[in-house]
Amino acid sequence: MIGKLVENIKKTNAPVVAGLDPMLSYVPSFIVKKAFAEYGETPAGAAEAIWQFNKGIVDAICDLIPAVKPQIAMYEQFGVEGLKAYCRTVDYCRSKGLVIIGDVKRGDIGSTSAAYAVGHLGKVQIGENSCPLFDTDFATVNPYLGTDGVLPFMKTCAAENKGIFVLVKTSNPSSGEFQDRLVLTEAAGEAGASSVYLKEGLESLLAMPKEERGRFALRPLYELVGEKVAEWAAEPSLMDPCGYSQVGAVVGATYPEMGRTLRKIMPKSYILVPGYGAQGGKAEDLKDFFNEDGLGAIVNSSRGIICAYQKAPYSSLGEEGFAEASRRATQDMIADINQALGH
Amino acid sequence: MIGKLVENIKKTNAPVVAGLDPMLSYVPSFIVKKAFAEYGETPAGAAEAIWQFNKGIVDAICDLIPAVKPQIAMYEQFGVEGLKAYCRTVDYCRSKGLVIIGDVKRGDIGSTSAAYAVGHLGKVQIGENSCPLFDTDFATVNPYLGTDGVLPFMKTCAAENKGIFVLVKTSNPSSGEFQDRLVLTEAAGEAGASSVYLKEGLESLLAMPKEERGRFALRPLYELVGEKVAEWAAEPSLMDPCGYSQVGAVVGATYPEMGRTLRKIMPKSYILVPGYGAQGGKAEDLKDFFNEDGLGAIVNSSRGIICAYQKAPYSSLGEEGFAEASRRATQDMIADINQALGH
Repeated sequence: MIGKLVENIKKTNAPVVAGLDPMLSYVPSFIVKKAFAEYGETPAGAAEAIWQFNKGIVDAICDLIPAVKPQIAMYEQFGVEGLKAYCRTVDYCRSKGLVIIGDVKRGDIGSTSAAYAVGHLGKVQIGENSCPLFDTDFATVNPYLGTDGVLPFMKTCAAENKGIFVLVKTSNPSSGEFQDRLVLTEAAGEAGASSVYLKEGLESLLAMPKEERGRFALRPLYELVGEKVAEWAAEPSLMDPCGYSQVGAVVGATYPEMGRTLRKIMPKSYILVPGYGAQGGKAEDLKDFFNEDGLGAIVNSSRGIICAYQKAPYSSLGEEGFAEASRRATQDMIADINQALGH
Repeated sequence: MIGKLVENIKKTNAPVVAGLDPMLSYVPSFIVKKAFAEYGETPAGAAEAIWQFNKGIVDAICDLIPAVKPQIAMYEQFGVEGLKAYCRTVDYCRSKGLVIIGDVKRGDIGSTSAAYAVGHLGKVQIGENSCPLFDTDFATVNPYLGTDGVLPFMKTCAAENKGIFVLVKTSNPSSGEFQDRLVLTEAAGEAGASSVYLKEGLESLLAMPKEERGRFALRPLYELVGEKVAEWAAEPSLMDPCGYSQVGAVVGATYPEMGRTLRKIMPKSYILVPGYGAQGGKAEDLKDFFNEDGLGAIVNSSRGIICAYQKAPYSSLGEEGFAEASRRATQDMIADINQALGH
């Protein structure tokens, strides 16, 4: 599926993904009114409103971009009816040739991650039938539980030609609280920096002869998670002929210096970059998320695209022009990024 | 809601939660056959089978235990139909007076966590209506994104008298990969050990005069996450008259030594302890997860209870006796734990 994503990116010349994260307050009031008139002020009414909103936007931008990223929480908050709108959105985007990244941030112990993997990326076995359910092309995955929480996703990716993006360094303000902490590790290049548990703590380290101590370093946690991603990505069954792995990573646009380091640590992983626009990430900050082949990253914008009609310079289009506003905002974003990249 | 949980635990004298994690392979074949006959080998058929299985078990054990913990992945794998069975299970358990811990392990940037929080614990606003959707009493939360991914859950907990259990040290074999890594921190007792980012790395630390260096320590990441949980738990609006906070933690039974340390770090947090039974945790390992008041922890068993009919000594009851087998396994688990605790 990473092959299809790269192909779509080349075709559109747009390393951009539109985040379909519809809050009810983002939906133009004429759509909400119509949906409530038909289904009441109910979860079904809310689901109809966000579906109609999504459909208008997808119709307006599907020829410009390679992929969409629906954030499942925005649907899940409306319960089962909301999740029906999620499925409908996924199916509709697929019919338009878009790659679909389910932003689900799932991750659990092995047997549980396996259930998430089949539900979101694979097919669940029911008697004689193999049933695809949420059926997105990629899913985002939380790494806090370690390898055995990620392996079931990798297994499904290999079997079904699907992909994942593992959270490495997230775009939010407090992402550093744990992700930036300095961790004792073997120095880069030695044994994958994967197995240091120096139980006795700092003083035992200080007591070591300097030569021995030289094996150790203090490095931020996100680098170690990035190294794990590189290790997972190197699995041969997950390498695509396009040169990238089905295992990618999430690194926020809001932390460009870290993006530069992580780009080098994970050379075969596509980086999904949230945080451009509404969260503060700028186009010139994005360069280092890309490889020298001009590939390797895809930049998300959610509110910047789907709420474009609510802000200048697009607000003159009015509520009725929400889809056209999204189209123009998408074109402007693509131009902004391609200019910064020198494409 | 932590107040209700403690009350239920005292009433049943059972610090035990039954994990309702139904794989289709766990469901007795007579139930599966009947469901498939009615709905076909479809997601609706699978959902009917797991619902009937759950109902049989809940009817058999609801007087013995304070709480249940449905693992949403096992329902989500069957898509929207599976999630209907999740909602039905939650509603049914509530009608039986059980506290319901939704094992959802959600966590995202602030605005997204807010959507999860209202969907799972609160009420979503739709026009004039406030609608409860998944409506569990507690949710499990992943802390990898830091405070601003957890705050929206805390806000909903304070408004709705609900609670969360934050993943601190999970029960799975590879949980140590990141959670056990030694992190540079200010020594315990100084400045909450929350803000050390020594960019220059190990050698700059080693170059410090010994007195200055003494402020620092290397401690496992799970301890820092535990300290954050203690900080979140101390928020006054989340403290219940029972003496515990609405903010609890998840610590696996499979790591009893770490449980002992974390119990002390988070004195006001209930600990949800997975990993007893099928995953290898033993009753005698559980003592240190409890406080001296005999409270402070609740131990989960999933397969040990719901699959009891598949194994000795309960298999003589046969498939038809699956619910009675669950009852006996629950009674045996309660006796095993209370004996180890000296209750």
